[in-house]
Amino acid sequence: MSPFEETEEFVRDVTSSIVAVTGGEATALHEPEFDGNEWNYVKECIDTNFVSSAGKYVDRFERELEAYTGARHAIAVSNGTSALHISLLLAGVGPGDEVLVPALTFVATANAVIYCGAEPHFVDSELDSLGIDPEKLRSYLESTTTLIAGQCRNRVSGKVIRAMVPMHTFGHPSKIRELLDLCMEFSITMVEDAAESLGSFYSNKHTGTFGLLGTLSFNGNKTITTGGGGAILTDDSNLARKAKHLTTTAKVPHKWRYIHDEVGYNYRLPNLNAALGCAQLENIESKISRKRALSELYQEKFNNLNGVSLIREPTGCRSNYWLQAILLNPQFISSRDQILERTNEIGISTRPAWDLLTTLKPYKDFPSMDMAQADELAKRVINLPSSPQLIKAKK
Amino acid sequence: MSPFEETEEFVRDVTSSIVAVTGGEATALHEPEFDGNEWNYVKECIDTNFVSSAGKYVDRFERELEAYTGARHAIAVSNGTSALHISLLLAGVGPGDEVLVPALTFVATANAVIYCGAEPHFVDSELDSLGIDPEKLRSYLESTTTLIAGQCRNRVSGKVIRAMVPMHTFGHPSKIRELLDLCMEFSITMVEDAAESLGSFYSNKHTGTFGLLGTLSFNGNKTITTGGGGAILTDDSNLARKAKHLTTTAKVPHKWRYIHDEVGYNYRLPNLNAALGCAQLENIESKISRKRALSELYQEKFNNLNGVSLIREPTGCRSNYWLQAILLNPQFISSRDQILERTNEIGISTRPAWDLLTTLKPYKDFPSMDMAQADELAKRVINLPSSPQLIKAKK
Repeated sequence: MSPFEETEEFVRDVTSSIVAVTGGEATALHEPEFDGNEWNYVKECIDTNFVSSAGKYVDRFERELEAYTGARHAIAVSNGTSALHISLLLAGVGPGDEVLVPALTFVATANAVIYCGAEPHFVDSELDSLGIDPEKLRSYLESTTTLIAGQCRNRVSGKVIRAMVPMHTFGHPSKIRELLDLCMEFSITMVEDAAESLGSFYSNKHTGTFGLLGTLSFNGNKTITTGGGGAILTDDSNLARKAKHLTTTAKVPHKWRYIHDEVGYNYRLPNLNAALGCAQLENIESKISRKRALSELYQEKFNNLNGVSLIREPTGCRSNYWLQAILLNPQFISSRDQILERTNEIGISTRPAWDLLTTLKPYKDFPSMDMAQADELAKRVINLPSSPQLIKAKK
Repeated sequence: MSPFEETEEFVRDVTSSIVAVTGGEATALHEPEFDGNEWNYVKECIDTNFVSSAGKYVDRFERELEAYTGARHAIAVSNGTSALHISLLLAGVGPGDEVLVPALTFVATANAVIYCGAEPHFVDSELDSLGIDPEKLRSYLESTTTLIAGQCRNRVSGKVIRAMVPMHTFGHPSKIRELLDLCMEFSITMVEDAAESLGSFYSNKHTGTFGLLGTLSFNGNKTITTGGGGAILTDDSNLARKAKHLTTTAKVPHKWRYIHDEVGYNYRLPNLNAALGCAQLENIESKISRKRALSELYQEKFNNLNGVSLIREPTGCRSNYWLQAILLNPQFISSRDQILERTNEIGISTRPAWDLLTTLKPYKDFPSMDMAQADELAKRVINLPSSPQLIKAKK
């Protein structure tokens, strides 16, 4: 075969393997599924006039998130970005600080750092988990930072590296224990971005519960959705109280007066959206078990195909398999866009990983370590249709 | 009568006049009313899986807001605070700037200024409209600012006064033409906070359409609600495009790539909430006509009571009468808290105006003009139950 024919055959084989799972019909990357009490709860909000800041579903959603994740406190907010913003503020991030952020993540992770007046400092990822590479980061921090008065200072910029924001890519838990060790050693506070990993556990502990604070997202494309929504997780009661206060305009309780004791935010989750979340959370295990079965099915189809491998959960973890993904062997990097073209043409939604944040106009001039692995991952990854509906529910 | 007996009689009379309108039952300050297509539209979102960023209701809500307000462009966002934040950014407000803000407003008006890295500069209100006093402000600006290179500079702080944010208090239009003249004369950009005044017109032009940008709120306590939501209004197509871009993570359109060309925000309104808004907007005129009738009814009850007057719409304006309010004569200021106590005790929700922002811990050290009138208003105003349901709908 000519190289051209070889590429063409590879693109066709990959496309066929995907279609073997999705069927020939148009298939979204990730579609929400409302097969429980969604209507009942939302209708109750409308019937009782409680759609906004008052109403029982926000409290209920928070308590149920606590029960599900094992976090002592969950605070429901307007989305994953606002959860990160407030968590970083509560971690003490402010102007003049740097925050370690993977370059391979959705842009919100870095945006939240900017909202605090701080700067993202981009770090590389590793192949097993797609998360921050702890070993490479250790060498980097050893060679570029100094611990001064209990603070990790970037020797180049002179700034304090205040926090690290590991993100659990596509739902797969990062090497969070090793990253936590690193944080301890270098006096860096961990804020965990678990936007993609509700239902993912590392050694039986829920992602988002390792850092001082963790964040969740219930955007429309996530494992469960509230339309738009997010949550802050923490075991620290004082931080939880502050998070609730800051996300609800910092209003001091009073019978009628409007006293606000700091600059707060309007980041609360409306009751209407929380109602949707309560219903969704009731069925999360069904959704995740089908998303896991979907990975098995993809594995079956991709097993005998050379040049590509399915990304599976890291050892010792349970992943929610939020977004299924394949990794092209390096020699097939040039086929990526053809596969994306071919599949999207026939209505099968696929997408590459994010453009590395270090390549985006607003983020190209911030401090960054060598990005060899993240750069390669960004070129080799393709996300596949991942809705739980692709597997029939067992009734 | 002793002064004590006189006060007691006044408190009793005011309370009776309110109860004569609300009836003896527990009455909220402002309750949403869902008597139209709310459930149909929301159910459609759930049935079709479009609850989040995709779906037709966001577009529809925006087009209908444009038709209703007469603004060329409406951009739906997560709430009134985020609408103000983005509008101020688009008005060029940034670090080192000052923004003129009434001290008599909800704290969000000032918070949005802080989010931009700028400082609020507090200004006084006037009695007719409860909005910024244009005459007093003119004298103040004349005596404290200098126009340098086309910019209004505060001679004390040396900072540029970049913008003014008039707010239409309780739905009553401010003296917006005079304020606009002032803005022109002093080279200050107007961003109008119309959070409370959807459905309020000044000389037949909708509030929020006078400034370069205007903002609306659809919080649960507003004339119409989306659970939580807001909108940006502007006649400028370029600003409208930027507003949509900035509120949707500044993502550049692409078939599959995630390219973001500036630091954006996650401020979009979910489709589920927009669906509620579309249904609410269909019935806005019925709600407002009943809120106006409610003002007539309060007027009837308060007409013959000495020491207190009902706040009515300013001349030449149509007010939505979002929150009904009475103004105590100065000699009865000391009765305010007793009236609040008495009414709330029997389940009739009343509240004072906001504590002046200049008295709040986060805002007490910012520049401020003399607050004589706002200070008096804050002490004399009581808001009364204002839901349209207090007047029976004409079928």
